[in-house]
Amino acid sequence: MDGTSLALPTFTDVLAAAARIAPHAHVTPVLRSRTLDALAGCELHFKCEPLQRSGAFKFRGACNAVWSLPQDVAARGVVTHSSGNHGGALALAARTRDIACHVVVPEGAVAAKLAAIAGYGARVHRCAPTIAAREAAAAQVQRDTGATLVHPYTDPRVIAGQGTAALELLAAAPALDALVVPVGGGGLASGCALVLAALAPACELLLAEPRGAADTAASLAAGRRVTEFVPDTLCDGLRGTLGAPDFELLHAHGAQVAVVEDADTVAALRLLWTRLKLLVEPSSAIALAAVLQQRERFAGRRVGVLLSGGNVDPAAAAQWFASAAT
Amino acid sequence: MDGTSLALPTFTDVLAAAARIAPHAHVTPVLRSRTLDALAGCELHFKCEPLQRSGAFKFRGACNAVWSLPQDVAARGVVTHSSGNHGGALALAARTRDIACHVVVPEGAVAAKLAAIAGYGARVHRCAPTIAAREAAAAQVQRDTGATLVHPYTDPRVIAGQGTAALELLAAAPALDALVVPVGGGGLASGCALVLAALAPACELLLAEPRGAADTAASLAAGRRVTEFVPDTLCDGLRGTLGAPDFELLHAHGAQVAVVEDADTVAALRLLWTRLKLLVEPSSAIALAAVLQQRERFAGRRVGVLLSGGNVDPAAAAQWFASAAT
Repeated sequence: MDGTSLALPTFTDVLAAAARIAPHAHVTPVLRSRTLDALAGCELHFKCEPLQRSGAFKFRGACNAVWSLPQDVAARGVVTHSSGNHGGALALAARTRDIACHVVVPEGAVAAKLAAIAGYGARVHRCAPTIAAREAAAAQVQRDTGATLVHPYTDPRVIAGQGTAALELLAAAPALDALVVPVGGGGLASGCALVLAALAPACELLLAEPRGAADTAASLAAGRRVTEFVPDTLCDGLRGTLGAPDFELLHAHGAQVAVVEDADTVAALRLLWTRLKLLVEPSSAIALAAVLQQRERFAGRRVGVLLSGGNVDPAAAAQWFASAAT
Repeated sequence: MDGTSLALPTFTDVLAAAARIAPHAHVTPVLRSRTLDALAGCELHFKCEPLQRSGAFKFRGACNAVWSLPQDVAARGVVTHSSGNHGGALALAARTRDIACHVVVPEGAVAAKLAAIAGYGARVHRCAPTIAAREAAAAQVQRDTGATLVHPYTDPRVIAGQGTAALELLAAAPALDALVVPVGGGGLASGCALVLAALAPACELLLAEPRGAADTAASLAAGRRVTEFVPDTLCDGLRGTLGAPDFELLHAHGAQVAVVEDADTVAALRLLWTRLKLLVEPSSAIALAAVLQQRERFAGRRVGVLLSGGNVDPAAAAQWFASAAT
């Protein structure tokens, strides 16, 4: 279930994914703000995945997985477990191929994300908020329906699909000195690592991780996956544990990690609202917070910032706005 | 002061403006949302001026005006009166040429916009919230400093500059059947009319105007400018009176007007947040509200929607979010 038995994806897989998802996915814009540049002391290029279909980069990997399946396998549908964006993305991807989608959703998921999963036509299965309960429920759906499991961040088709975001960013903003990417399960981060290794080996990869779920920082420091921790962070998209293939790819790449406090993430989120006019999730804003935390590292450099998604609950957003107004 | 003595701009002026502002302005993205398409029953192409520099299309006209001035005239600075986005835009445009900028701001302006004007380095002059007080204060600055007046919507350089938004939209989304544009003073609307007349004469121009400031609807119906009204609308950018040259251009073009209730505008604003992830002003969201109001008119057609700006106060945004959450 953890994907350890799956082959690691390669840069060639990312290129194949780009061609496969092109009919379905948006090429998202890369936005600039001179005010934010001045604030950060470097040149920022924001890759805007909140503007991707389903409101997050997750559509890339889900779409690649769905369209990689042979027709007879696809006909039995797909299944995943997800507390949020991957579930909505897989539901929408399944709809582009007109196949069934089952999503196992743990209690406590963000309401806006749950609504999206159902809204895109997936069948929702609720379960307890533990990895074991999620995997058991997904396995049951597999047995019942013959659906193919599409894991949110260890499936090599998913990792390759996520990498297409970096491919597009490098095309729009060549010669980046660094790329900052949020890290949770690691699918996006490791997909980006594949692209940087092939196309921009001199470009530094910095992962942004919340203090309350800093297992990637611990894992890369220890040289082995650290999986025992209880996540405690506002960044609901980054509470997962770094996957095994993701760890392998990121460790081999020599990725660095910036550990960020939630308060700094919320401040960055407000900046993105007021300066970029973009409504992003805390799990995205953390990437800008990491840049602002490490000004000296980035001073005067050309930095890509991967904004990963924008699915927030209005009630939470109201709170963040209200606290910004005082 | 009303611009009646100024020559009307032409399409050639819009082309010249496009070349003039290119080194300074963003080419803003055109965004799509299939969910919004399904909701509206037509194909929507959103031109995203909240992502323009200064957070609104106003930078286009201001920048064109500032860079149209001969060097010796420019050296004495520019002045305007504005309750909001034009003031911030002119301040930023003046900064791109390193000249002085004075902005006369009436009491009651949105705090975020006032902060932007000062933040971009303009000298702010407060006055009473009447047209007469605004014009008197601006005239005084002109006498004191020799600065050139750049009127927010009657200056032909401003109108031509605003038209560049439609130019870019048609390049990104050709063969539009209709274009929906918010109307206040009319600078954006009349600039767009010049572009449609030259490049897409079959494309219908629909102006979106709040019920509480529907002087353009009244003026075009009467065949003469109706200037006696007291604005009462949430759309702070659309409270102004249609300018004389703007009236002439829009009347000659045969533009139609959709009059929109503020409640529908707020509903549209929430849709743009949740589906397009974009934080827009009520004065922008009104364009989507107009489309949703007139479904039959637009059914199955290709519709451009000009989102004009995204400068909102966090406190107001918090209220809108909170009411969306309940």
